[in-house]
Amino acid sequence: MDVILHNDQFIREEELVISKEDRGYQFGDGIYEVIRVYEGNMFTAKEHIDRFYASAEKIKIVIPYTKDVFHKLMYDLVEKNEINNGQVYVQITRGASIRQHHFPIDAPPVLIGYTKTVERPVELMEAGVRGTFIEDIRWLRCDIKSLNLLGNVLAKQEAYDKGFYEAILHRGEVVTEGSSTNMYGIKDGVVFTHPTDNLILPGITRSVILDLCQEAGIQVQETAFTKTQALEMDEFFLSSTTAEVMPIIEIDGQTIGDGTPGVLTKKLQKAFAEKLNLGVKA
Amino acid sequence: MDVILHNDQFIREEELVISKEDRGYQFGDGIYEVIRVYEGNMFTAKEHIDRFYASAEKIKIVIPYTKDVFHKLMYDLVEKNEINNGQVYVQITRGASIRQHHFPIDAPPVLIGYTKTVERPVELMEAGVRGTFIEDIRWLRCDIKSLNLLGNVLAKQEAYDKGFYEAILHRGEVVTEGSSTNMYGIKDGVVFTHPTDNLILPGITRSVILDLCQEAGIQVQETAFTKTQALEMDEFFLSSTTAEVMPIIEIDGQTIGDGTPGVLTKKLQKAFAEKLNLGVKA
Repeated sequence: MDVILHNDQFIREEELVISKEDRGYQFGDGIYEVIRVYEGNMFTAKEHIDRFYASAEKIKIVIPYTKDVFHKLMYDLVEKNEINNGQVYVQITRGASIRQHHFPIDAPPVLIGYTKTVERPVELMEAGVRGTFIEDIRWLRCDIKSLNLLGNVLAKQEAYDKGFYEAILHRGEVVTEGSSTNMYGIKDGVVFTHPTDNLILPGITRSVILDLCQEAGIQVQETAFTKTQALEMDEFFLSSTTAEVMPIIEIDGQTIGDGTPGVLTKKLQKAFAEKLNLGVKA
Repeated sequence: MDVILHNDQFIREEELVISKEDRGYQFGDGIYEVIRVYEGNMFTAKEHIDRFYASAEKIKIVIPYTKDVFHKLMYDLVEKNEINNGQVYVQITRGASIRQHHFPIDAPPVLIGYTKTVERPVELMEAGVRGTFIEDIRWLRCDIKSLNLLGNVLAKQEAYDKGFYEAILHRGEVVTEGSSTNMYGIKDGVVFTHPTDNLILPGITRSVILDLCQEAGIQVQETAFTKTQALEMDEFFLSSTTAEVMPIIEIDGQTIGDGTPGVLTKKLQKAFAEKLNLGVKA
């Protein structure tokens, strides 16, 4: 039976007590990370942990562990649950306290982590997926990986209801990111993607991909592009911790390029897969 | 010992089990209401219940009870806990399911309600409070009373840190509402307040106040005003379920009017207090 991480203790799920007044439950007042595990190794664990601490700092939650202790907790969680291919989900909230908007004074943060088994979406990555444009109505701190995800949830569901894999969010004409992914277009050999500002999440997979582009001599421009420009791209893809490099072959019924995963997209998929084999036990 | 409402059952707090994968806890995927109880009577219960159902519908959560059954559950909760002056907090989430952004298929919603004792903030209402301008960075569906409250929380805390009672939120130059309140300015005998669109919560207390204005022959314009206009108002006040009609006598160090609660504001406070005595057992 899997264990769950509760603060710095490993417990059984039935031992877990979440307060009705946990600020995560009443305000979404917390942040989270998802770390992918390949062949027993946490992939880009350091980067995810750094972002976890950065998100916490942005909303002024003080994580009561050093990064090294936290890393060890993640490592032990993966090992105890014997996760070979899967993921760790971890979140921390501002703790439980009598409901009031401002921060409680004496409530310690509440951390919960757990694992599950996940397979790589190999078939989808080969075939490509379809996206749909949906207006980005989220708040103006999308750089924080917070538990306030209702805007993302509603966009994803709208895409699903319309039969699409992912929502391609845009503010006015400008494409920002997906509901749980980053977005990229390729034109004349150049990869375009929204710069990391307050409007998008600074994706760890995004960062890996930009490094892979550099290694492969593929030019990158971290420049926002419009919906119209998106439809005129030669190739299009999204990325996330679980979707890796996922080709988008069609947007709202319009094919991108020739309607199959593009050459550079496939090159990046291959480079990404090769990078996974480099993983050392984190 | 108080009981808690869990779905349609009254239980003891220690019996309550909240799943780590309750979508309220991981996505803030739910909505809520706070209903004020005066002398054992729920105030404007019907209006709060209507808004609860409206918020749920906007995010496509189906509440599995009729409004009448729900109203009875609220009534019983107040009665069982012998609340004389206090409030009911109630929220419903999209239920517990393996984490994924899109809606789960088979997860029943999770409803939790509880009560607490609250007193009217009589001294503050007499003295007035001070507000501070803070940029409104929330999402574009502030009309939904959702559990995605991190933007509100951060604004409230920023106001508190600076020594103010409430954040006066503005998008660019335009004042929208408070972090947990609606905002009003009075100029030349006319009450101005932001119209009920996607940028503010349609406050129940706001609605009561606008009715009171009409009864008292006070002119109302549901028209947005700017920060500059706010500072030039003769009177200023905020409203909420718990703050009622609360005078704002100073904004960022600048006095409003003569720096004391204004004549019309006090008139509205009096009319509001009189209305409370009209409450019939809901």
